[in-house]
Amino acid sequence: MRVLASDFRLPAVLVEKAVAVALVEDLSEAGDITTVATVTPDATASGVIAARMPGVVAGLQAAEAAFRALDANVSFEVFIPDGGNVEAYQKIALVAGNARALLTAERVALNFLGHMSGIATLTRSYVDKTSGTRARITDTRKTTPGLRAFEKLAVRSGGGLNHRFGLFDAILIKDNHIIAAGSIGAALDKAREKTGHMVKVEIEIATLEELREALAHKPDAVLLDNMPLAMLKEAVAEVAGCVVTEASGGVNLDTVRAIAETGVDLISVGALTHSAAVLDIGLDFK
Amino acid sequence: MRVLASDFRLPAVLVEKAVAVALVEDLSEAGDITTVATVTPDATASGVIAARMPGVVAGLQAAEAAFRALDANVSFEVFIPDGGNVEAYQKIALVAGNARALLTAERVALNFLGHMSGIATLTRSYVDKTSGTRARITDTRKTTPGLRAFEKLAVRSGGGLNHRFGLFDAILIKDNHIIAAGSIGAALDKAREKTGHMVKVEIEIATLEELREALAHKPDAVLLDNMPLAMLKEAVAEVAGCVVTEASGGVNLDTVRAIAETGVDLISVGALTHSAAVLDIGLDFK
Amino acid sequence: MRVLASDFRLPAVLVEKAVAVALVEDLSEAGDITTVATVTPDATASGVIAARMPGVVAGLQAAEAAFRALDANVSFEVFIPDGGNVEAYQKIALVAGNARALLTAERVALNFLGHMSGIATLTRSYVDKTSGTRARITDTRKTTPGLRAFEKLAVRSGGGLNHRFGLFDAILIKDNHIIAAGSIGAALDKAREKTGHMVKVEIEIATLEELREALAHKPDAVLLDNMPLAMLKEAVAEVAGCVVTEASGGVNLDTVRAIAETGVDLISVGALTHSAAVLDIGLDFK
Amino acid sequence: MRVLASDFRLPAVLVEKAVAVALVEDLSEAGDITTVATVTPDATASGVIAARMPGVVAGLQAAEAAFRALDANVSFEVFIPDGGNVEAYQKIALVAGNARALLTAERVALNFLGHMSGIATLTRSYVDKTSGTRARITDTRKTTPGLRAFEKLAVRSGGGLNHRFGLFDAILIKDNHIIAAGSIGAALDKAREKTGHMVKVEIEIATLEELREALAHKPDAVLLDNMPLAMLKEAVAEVAGCVVTEASGGVNLDTVRAIAETGVDLISVGALTHSAAVLDIGLDFK
Amino acid sequence: MRVLASDFRLPAVLVEKAVAVALVEDLSEAGDITTVATVTPDATASGVIAARMPGVVAGLQAAEAAFRALDANVSFEVFIPDGGNVEAYQKIALVAGNARALLTAERVALNFLGHMSGIATLTRSYVDKTSGTRARITDTRKTTPGLRAFEKLAVRSGGGLNHRFGLFDAILIKDNHIIAAGSIGAALDKAREKTGHMVKVEIEIATLEELREALAHKPDAVLLDNMPLAMLKEAVAEVAGCVVTEASGGVNLDTVRAIAETGVDLISVGALTHSAAVLDIGLDFK
Amino acid sequence: MRVLASDFRLPAVLVEKAVAVALVEDLSEAGDITTVATVTPDATASGVIAARMPGVVAGLQAAEAAFRALDANVSFEVFIPDGGNVEAYQKIALVAGNARALLTAERVALNFLGHMSGIATLTRSYVDKTSGTRARITDTRKTTPGLRAFEKLAVRSGGGLNHRFGLFDAILIKDNHIIAAGSIGAALDKAREKTGHMVKVEIEIATLEELREALAHKPDAVLLDNMPLAMLKEAVAEVAGCVVTEASGGVNLDTVRAIAETGVDLISVGALTHSAAVLDIGLDFK
Repeated sequence: MRVLASDFRLPAVLVEKAVAVALVEDLSEAGDITTVATVTPDATASGVIAARMPGVVAGLQAAEAAFRALDANVSFEVFIPDGGNVEAYQKIALVAGNARALLTAERVALNFLGHMSGIATLTRSYVDKTSGTRARITDTRKTTPGLRAFEKLAVRSGGGLNHRFGLFDAILIKDNHIIAAGSIGAALDKAREKTGHMVKVEIEIATLEELREALAHKPDAVLLDNMPLAMLKEAVAEVAGCVVTEASGGVNLDTVRAIAETGVDLISVGALTHSAAVLDIGLDFK
Repeated sequence: MRVLASDFRLPAVLVEKAVAVALVEDLSEAGDITTVATVTPDATASGVIAARMPGVVAGLQAAEAAFRALDANVSFEVFIPDGGNVEAYQKIALVAGNARALLTAERVALNFLGHMSGIATLTRSYVDKTSGTRARITDTRKTTPGLRAFEKLAVRSGGGLNHRFGLFDAILIKDNHIIAAGSIGAALDKAREKTGHMVKVEIEIATLEELREALAHKPDAVLLDNMPLAMLKEAVAEVAGCVVTEASGGVNLDTVRAIAETGVDLISVGALTHSAAVLDIGLDFK
Repeated sequence: MRVLASDFRLPAVLVEKAVAVALVEDLSEAGDITTVATVTPDATASGVIAARMPGVVAGLQAAEAAFRALDANVSFEVFIPDGGNVEAYQKIALVAGNARALLTAERVALNFLGHMSGIATLTRSYVDKTSGTRARITDTRKTTPGLRAFEKLAVRSGGGLNHRFGLFDAILIKDNHIIAAGSIGAALDKAREKTGHMVKVEIEIATLEELREALAHKPDAVLLDNMPLAMLKEAVAEVAGCVVTEASGGVNLDTVRAIAETGVDLISVGALTHSAAVLDIGLDFK
Repeated sequence: MRVLASDFRLPAVLVEKAVAVALVEDLSEAGDITTVATVTPDATASGVIAARMPGVVAGLQAAEAAFRALDANVSFEVFIPDGGNVEAYQKIALVAGNARALLTAERVALNFLGHMSGIATLTRSYVDKTSGTRARITDTRKTTPGLRAFEKLAVRSGGGLNHRFGLFDAILIKDNHIIAAGSIGAALDKAREKTGHMVKVEIEIATLEELREALAHKPDAVLLDNMPLAMLKEAVAEVAGCVVTEASGGVNLDTVRAIAETGVDLISVGALTHSAAVLDIGLDFK
Repeated sequence: MRVLASDFRLPAVLVEKAVAVALVEDLSEAGDITTVATVTPDATASGVIAARMPGVVAGLQAAEAAFRALDANVSFEVFIPDGGNVEAYQKIALVAGNARALLTAERVALNFLGHMSGIATLTRSYVDKTSGTRARITDTRKTTPGLRAFEKLAVRSGGGLNHRFGLFDAILIKDNHIIAAGSIGAALDKAREKTGHMVKVEIEIATLEELREALAHKPDAVLLDNMPLAMLKEAVAEVAGCVVTEASGGVNLDTVRAIAETGVDLISVGALTHSAAVLDIGLDFK
Repeated sequence: MRVLASDFRLPAVLVEKAVAVALVEDLSEAGDITTVATVTPDATASGVIAARMPGVVAGLQAAEAAFRALDANVSFEVFIPDGGNVEAYQKIALVAGNARALLTAERVALNFLGHMSGIATLTRSYVDKTSGTRARITDTRKTTPGLRAFEKLAVRSGGGLNHRFGLFDAILIKDNHIIAAGSIGAALDKAREKTGHMVKVEIEIATLEELREALAHKPDAVLLDNMPLAMLKEAVAEVAGCVVTEASGGVNLDTVRAIAETGVDLISVGALTHSAAVLDIGLDFK
């Protein structure tokens, strides 16, 4: 058994649990009745995992775990690791083991791989569009329920940076929080007072006036939401490198370059995780 | 508390569990540190859930469950139920309750709603393209791991029919099964012999010769994979209504009408669940 | 370690989970206080699993999993696999490994084995009684809560066919559904309209009039419930092979042959899973 | 909602979890496709739970929990509580609520009720056979995996006493433990030394010599296994009331009276939980 | 039912799960056999929760959840909320409901309350010792397995600030990370490069040379570990408010004041969560 | 891989589950972001686990499981097993394997080890104080929620005896039960009547009058709560060895010897599990 050594790995307990959930979803109690009826228990097989279109690979750890859950002795050789570019019809990995296990795990493995590679591929497109600028592409909490860790990993595989993982690991003050707290300043002060020194504080800003009020209360970052390009540029100038600037809203592959050229540090893109099409990856038995 | 009465509902235990998983994913142990810092515990609020673009609604049961998990007494009034068409900026539902609960559950609720409505909306596009033909649109097992039941529900909400739920509830014999069994006939015979009378048997077919061999062994359905339109039409004629015919491969919104007009009973579309973009739905506090 | 290769296997995740539940049930937190007090940690042992009465074996996968959960290196050699006939005092399997592990897992292993073999044995009795007829013996949803997959496997081991696994994988319309839908025809039409092409539809029928109404709406199968033998024969004739016929009600080892001789395709027997006595199987340490 | 007040109750978390497992087993992800297709979402219904044969009721808490899991507002009125005798066709309980909920939960509710009432009924038979003697009927660890707490409750409902719940709550030294420890005396001494004052110690004995050796080391109870009646009587005399005496082996409804008349304190019967036939209980909608 | 409105609350799903784990731990399958034997099912009771020694209250949400898990209609009135000071024998809360439920849940409720209040009380001692200085008291990851969220809440209740929740929400570079990365600078640069803008980076420092090297690479915070007071003061001076300073090592109630007077921003104290004695809190039935 | 052979082990399923909970608590979804950023995936390391103060070791099984969960091939060599005395700075164990795995699992492993060793060390102090008397030290149900099995194991490692594990495995009648039952005698009779022969019955007693009433109803043990030493001695004399005597209340390291010298069989000490300070144990990489 070859263990993937890579930075693009999640805690194994997390992966094994998610894979088990997906397998149980596909197998329920009766199991793979087609394979049991047509394939003998001891047959072996091997197959090539390859993309049918160019893209960026992500999700090999989960794919391997799916096969291994059904055949602990499966061999899984990787040619293009997570984060690597794949050409159409290029081999990504080779899997070999018990034939029933491979057939039964195939769809779960490919569902993880295709979904995550789709996200990595879309992320890479945004990253490429902004190359040469200081802007980095980041994700949001608009993820598929239950798969956030996998989708955030895919964003990293595509060259993006992860925004906060959830409501728990950083503060992002939005308009409703500001209204509830009374003012931008009050919200920022309360946030600072109630949380530890290891928690960053960002605040959503829509105008330059709001920006100035915020800066007076020292956030770690400002989220400049839906600002026209000119205003965005002005905001970046006003911030003058003192806090991290993040742009959001109206971002797509046509607009992202111009946004990046305003000088913002980060551009957050919900579509990375909520609207990426699958990367078509298949398993061909030899 | 108003319980949604609708056909588009999953077993409550399933929904509550998936919603709890998503909430724990977003809250981890520290919870919503922004909201706790800025909103008082007893404040109340209400907000309108509305789409920012036209589409088909799906996922209200999960959305309601997300709010209810954090405030058991939340009120949730639905204006457009699952399966209904929504115009841009039209109200889908109204939610009211504890302000912290609404703010904390918002993203999870919208993630379910946006993802499922995106699938329903895409499904409806395919359904509309094939209106007037006998063909019905069906899904595949190419679903997001852990969310199959939700995605299959969204397909139904969009007017599609569900294919089998997993490997466990119907037999679908593909090429590797045929190779392992020795022949199309042998595979079909083994499938029949080993499974009960409540299990349907479908077989994947690539040529008219294969089709004839299959028909001699009485499957319930044939999956005509990647056939050119002319061959598809011929296959339908040959089947002559004796078994269900399903077309797959190369299906997109441009090609689906022509495929439907060959007379097939079903057209399966992986993209419904693996490549639907989110339907942009937001929650506006009043 | 020898992995059982057999058709009578469940998904490993399912078996390991059920076995863990049973072990935790037996061990709770304090563990096997008798064995810890009296047996040294490193002692080894081996034992023979044998029936004390003739029957049909089922459940070896779970039994092996119970021992392996406590000693990953246990050896487990099978002489009579699931589905095989065993004479009184004949060896079924040989288990060897850590003595504490064997003693602690013994009861859980035997509870699975005895319960499942009891079901397989009773199923085989029904199957033997109907040999030479076209009727096959099938089970029901009257299973022990939490163990349906294991009990359905045991039915297959005994030579029976499985009916649907649950409410989810096939439609079985009973009298209350008919009343709610308005009529037999309406119920069948609604069922067809709302479910995919991979779902079979069966309807429960009590009289020949009902049968005729049902046949006009093309179910896949009819469940002829509690019909006298003469009526059953007439029903089979009327169906004329167009749909699957299933008899239920009043079935026991005395009546099953006569029911089979009416020509029905299937006879469903609740007792297989709700009233089978254990097959007495023990583990004798050497 | 009427909460059952009774001694025959398990911790609610335990019951709700077991019921959820059983419901998920029956519903999987697709749910009750028959009921959804044929019954409108808001329809209500009520039905009578009644036995079709005389027996002893057990399992009402689980049955109620099954209905309540699908309709939190269901009403559940009990006429014959756990432990009560029921005549054939006598009403046990009345359930009323959402029609879909009742239809969907019906089988799970009845599976618990029938299985547990079957055990209670068989236990009562043994208890009745031994009435007037000092012997009480007790169960064993030969239970259905995952259901021990429910089956032990059913034994109590039938008038039996529970033996230890598992390997964790009491010591029962069997022959293999004695061999491992070196002698009966050594095994008893080790057991005493290693366990707290709240743990009872019983030892399995096959001869009068063994009994004498055991008594010298002061167990709390002796399990007289498979002794002929005469030897059993002698053993009871020899014990002279100093420790609890339990008989096991070869116990059935024909032999239990004679065994009881030897004067033993307890008779343990594996069949109570591993071989009780279901008590046929049905739900008739009104 | 009165819902506690307070900042010292965890997500309800988390609390209910932890309480269920604790109840199952205490009840296992047989339940509270003492209470069932001696108290009638319908009896009601009420009791006062009071401390037997002065301290700071924490854990009322969990305590209430324990009672509510066994009696959904329990009333739970709070006199001194989390974070409040309690005198010896002062009432903290009043609980009333089903007598069996109260008796059975009592120990679980008090175990949460006593453990968490013990931590809050110890935290308050450290906070009081440092009053008037700029130093705030913070916790560590040296928590009891499975209870970190509860223990971190207790620290907040006592007036402490929480350090990072785990390995996932902030970067803390220790000596082994520095060795692996090659140097302090390399470790800080890698940390910045690989993580998003919402993640804070702290580094452990033992000497002033290391401090200078670190400051050149702009961490968010420095952990000054086991420094003598003089060096600590010098380090604070050198940092000059540019980054957060945290002192750790050799902190106890005798030393904490002097450490605080060096001018550090934070003092982390492992003992808060790993060595706090219980606050003795009891439940007296009326 | 070296498997620890020792009496101080819990069922592996229990340990693996608790360790997984603790790891997930520490890793959440994002994992150990510090280690991933600074240590290469394939680096290996080894480290020595050693105490920084003298004490008694407990918890090695959990510590090993934490490392093994992240590196299945880790080597873990034990020098001082559970229950052994360790001097300050003496080696307890040596762990070697993947560097990331060791760094990531370190805190979880040490949290189990330090907490459990702290309990074992405190228990040993009480045991040593009472050496030469007949009194044995026992624990209570005042344990940390979710960790009872681990804490009870630590008590055994320190030389203590375990009291009952929970509400389920023995009867302990306290004052509220007596009030509910009507009298001491009634409570004891009900307890005997309702529970099996493998359940011990203890009753809490505050005066000699109560003791006499209790003895007339034959409990297995009496809990002499908060009695002055003289009364305790008298109580022991009155019991005259007929039932087990347990003292509780006001027990600390200063008072325990005198209590032991009254002749009681057991002294129960809540502080063992609710107030033991951690034993400071660290991991030093080589």
